[in-house]
Amino acid sequence: MSSEDGRVAVASEMRWNGWGDPAQASDLPRAVRMLLPLLLGRIRKPEPSVDLSEVQLVPSALQEGDLHDLATIVGPEHVDSSREARIRHAGGRSTPDLLRRRRREQAAPDAVVSPTGHDAVAAVLRFCADRGIAVIPFGGGTSVVGALEPERGAHRAVISLDLHRLSGLIRLDEVSGEATFAAGTRGPDAEALLSRRGFELGHYPQSFRYATVGGFAAARSSGQNSAGHGRFDDMVTGLRVATPTGDLDLGRSPGSAAGPDLIRVFLGSEGVFGVITEVRVRVHPVPTERVVEAWSFSDFAQGADALRRVAQRGGGPTVIRLSDEAETAVSLAQVGRIGKALSKGASMVTVYEGADSAGRRERTTAILAEAGGASSGDGDAAAWLDGRFDGPYLRDSLLDAGVFCETLETATTWANLLHLKEEVTEALRESVETAGGRAYVMCHISHIYATGASLYFTVIANLPSDPLETWREIKGRVSDAILAAGGTISHHHAVGRDHAPWLEQEIGETGVRILAAIKRELDPSWILNPGAVISSHRSR
Amino acid sequence: MSSEDGRVAVASEMRWNGWGDPAQASDLPRAVRMLLPLLLGRIRKPEPSVDLSEVQLVPSALQEGDLHDLATIVGPEHVDSSREARIRHAGGRSTPDLLRRRRREQAAPDAVVSPTGHDAVAAVLRFCADRGIAVIPFGGGTSVVGALEPERGAHRAVISLDLHRLSGLIRLDEVSGEATFAAGTRGPDAEALLSRRGFELGHYPQSFRYATVGGFAAARSSGQNSAGHGRFDDMVTGLRVATPTGDLDLGRSPGSAAGPDLIRVFLGSEGVFGVITEVRVRVHPVPTERVVEAWSFSDFAQGADALRRVAQRGGGPTVIRLSDEAETAVSLAQVGRIGKALSKGASMVTVYEGADSAGRRERTTAILAEAGGASSGDGDAAAWLDGRFDGPYLRDSLLDAGVFCETLETATTWANLLHLKEEVTEALRESVETAGGRAYVMCHISHIYATGASLYFTVIANLPSDPLETWREIKGRVSDAILAAGGTISHHHAVGRDHAPWLEQEIGETGVRILAAIKRELDPSWILNPGAVISSHRSR
Repeated sequence: MSSEDGRVAVASEMRWNGWGDPAQASDLPRAVRMLLPLLLGRIRKPEPSVDLSEVQLVPSALQEGDLHDLATIVGPEHVDSSREARIRHAGGRSTPDLLRRRRREQAAPDAVVSPTGHDAVAAVLRFCADRGIAVIPFGGGTSVVGALEPERGAHRAVISLDLHRLSGLIRLDEVSGEATFAAGTRGPDAEALLSRRGFELGHYPQSFRYATVGGFAAARSSGQNSAGHGRFDDMVTGLRVATPTGDLDLGRSPGSAAGPDLIRVFLGSEGVFGVITEVRVRVHPVPTERVVEAWSFSDFAQGADALRRVAQRGGGPTVIRLSDEAETAVSLAQVGRIGKALSKGASMVTVYEGADSAGRRERTTAILAEAGGASSGDGDAAAWLDGRFDGPYLRDSLLDAGVFCETLETATTWANLLHLKEEVTEALRESVETAGGRAYVMCHISHIYATGASLYFTVIANLPSDPLETWREIKGRVSDAILAAGGTISHHHAVGRDHAPWLEQEIGETGVRILAAIKRELDPSWILNPGAVISSHRSR
Repeated sequence: MSSEDGRVAVASEMRWNGWGDPAQASDLPRAVRMLLPLLLGRIRKPEPSVDLSEVQLVPSALQEGDLHDLATIVGPEHVDSSREARIRHAGGRSTPDLLRRRRREQAAPDAVVSPTGHDAVAAVLRFCADRGIAVIPFGGGTSVVGALEPERGAHRAVISLDLHRLSGLIRLDEVSGEATFAAGTRGPDAEALLSRRGFELGHYPQSFRYATVGGFAAARSSGQNSAGHGRFDDMVTGLRVATPTGDLDLGRSPGSAAGPDLIRVFLGSEGVFGVITEVRVRVHPVPTERVVEAWSFSDFAQGADALRRVAQRGGGPTVIRLSDEAETAVSLAQVGRIGKALSKGASMVTVYEGADSAGRRERTTAILAEAGGASSGDGDAAAWLDGRFDGPYLRDSLLDAGVFCETLETATTWANLLHLKEEVTEALRESVETAGGRAYVMCHISHIYATGASLYFTVIANLPSDPLETWREIKGRVSDAILAAGGTISHHHAVGRDHAPWLEQEIGETGVRILAAIKRELDPSWILNPGAVISSHRSR
């Protein structure tokens, strides 16, 4: 996967109109097919998908001179305005993105430009600012919030800035436990490069197989092991960033009080302030032990209270997740088993890795048992581990079968958790019904903090015609409900374009003014990812 | 200390020209007096201090109309342009601040204004922006980096905005473990208010007895228990901020990916973007157990390696500190014993509090012993606990005896730690000698992270005449050395005015442009703490 000098080969491309490795795409498992009518009633076959060759694009708006000049910067073979390249960079992997890929007429960036290092990225940004060309930074292409839509804002053209050639381990400080990666390094490549030196990053979001280290940073990612190792925010110790008007090299030391932490300005900036080109992260020795155990609680509230006690005590599991009754019933957490084992109550998965695993398990076990949990052995937890990156494949099969499937997520304090869950569940159910459909809503907690937790909702629904427009309305109502019930508009999917209208409610008018002021300073021609995070009218 | 409604009485005022409670000021202990000539040679008696009544101030530049209008906002008894009030708000508690308090002619703010809540703070800011009056936010008055100098920038007058009336526990969410304090609440008051509800904040910087919760946030404070509970940055879950152009209410939920974390824009902003009026923090149950143990290592390098192992394993002590050979020799870490017990090697203090204290101690003990440490029982550690807030009193006695004493601090990665320590120690020694003096330089590690640690230097010196100007030159050279050797310009003292010239080296031209852009947006007339953090020429 990687050559001697720490650079890594490009991973296989994802399905152009679905998730992941085309070879792993599969039909809906029989058990799921049997279950669906029980949950959603009769399901209509959808319109067939279009083939890649049938997609109609508007011709590239870039002129020959632009393409020539871009080629001068990055090399002619790295400026691609072919139909296929443009379509492959036309969006991310939200369900709306995939529904758009099923249409004949599609929007796409005017070219895909792939620079090879920090200086080339900076040069492309200066060039595009000068020529009035919008730039959408593109890492693994796994955004589920519309951050990769080919929006050109006020500009005459838009390019996708594909960062896959910025790949590899640049430095490893084994004493300090710090690794510096080129931002385009994908999750599996980063772990492979570290593991041969005895280290692990330990960041495993569901997008892990395709997403990049730079994307983790830009979108404030959370991983399945975040209970043990923290959010990606907590792992980042340094960033190198190129902007249209200057570079940054941030993160001089751990524990600094030298003014506000500017790393945090770029974590969550989703490419609107600059392009992250290098990421320095805290790493730890590859864990030598792993223990898994599943637990069962009488209901979600009981399980959530147990989680709270574990989080507030500290020093608990590396992974801890709790499915609500609806998710537990269909075994959604164990992708390979969905619908096969119908279970009651609320099921929990725990995984312990690394130092003091046995002690952490012992102390956690005491808390979970005292809170009313019963161990159900390691089977379900092992099944969760097996299928933990496979959820998105299932969504593709559901869409093919005419079943709408999407996820959304939020977080709040422990005191507000059950209220928020109820409000969001109800808003989802009600708004699907108002649209004439039927929904099955499931929820789990995947990330815990001393003061609160995340809530991750999966909805499958039998939507009437035009699911894209229908979902847009539903998502709007549910987002309103999240904010009204005290949740954040995103726990780890980020803002993109889909959540931007709700960001101002969350951080206020003054908060948005701060973001816009930073953007105007660094990107005065407003070329970077226009419309993402900050609404374009803020450009003045 | 506190009335029924959660408000607390004002703590006793600090010595106007020294540290802390005037009743606790004392002469230099006999053992220290004996030791000093050995370390520094013959010491000349300094000029006697001036009395408060002898201080000469320029008359207040505020007009009657200004004072009247300010009184309308905050009440006439809370606008104080008396000599004493002005002098008491003329600076912080760095050694240069104290040396300036010894002079007959002093600079001071033109009045002290004490609003009582968020809305009154916002009204004062709008008024001052409108009238061209600079505003220096004032919490506990414990800054040691010149953040409280009465600099008026381009304005005709400057007020000190004293926040002591914003005091008390506003809300406590016992389930989520979150407490909201008015920003002017002092450390001891915050802990007293929490402890009667069974909770602790657990943030104990040396300034604890006077510093405020808002100051902890504004200056990115670290406390003695940061190994266990994290820096103050990590404790803050929400902020309310008043700026001249709008308010902010930040921190909707734990674990959010809703754009960049704007809380981090205000942590470390030192009053240049706005005034923090409320702080929401993570709290934990009052620990019921405490174990202390001192350790001895053959030298600092061995002890630092042991600290690294503890930090990288995680789940270690609540407090862990390592003194270098020079600090160990004079027992500086045990204020009551200084100079009495001359010890060899490098001494370490560990304290374990709260959940799993015994387990954490057992695992830490194994690491420390394996790294070459030898337990020296609980005596030295208990002595450290006893004297841990008393260091600044000793400095006053030293200054009275003609001995210059100051501290400075930095942080870096584990790999760079010994190099940085050597370079800074050498720069201190050399530049004191160049100035014709003699120095004794001591160092300890007080804060550890997975990837690195802090270095805290104490220098006592026999400086020739005009120690204020001589120290300015020395401090400049040492700051250069810190940056050149890869350290941060501050680990927890912050930037203020003293470190501002070095901040640009640390975060780069583009980094300073980001700070200036935020400031221009929120404080377009540049009234807030002009000259702190960001050099005033950035106002354009």
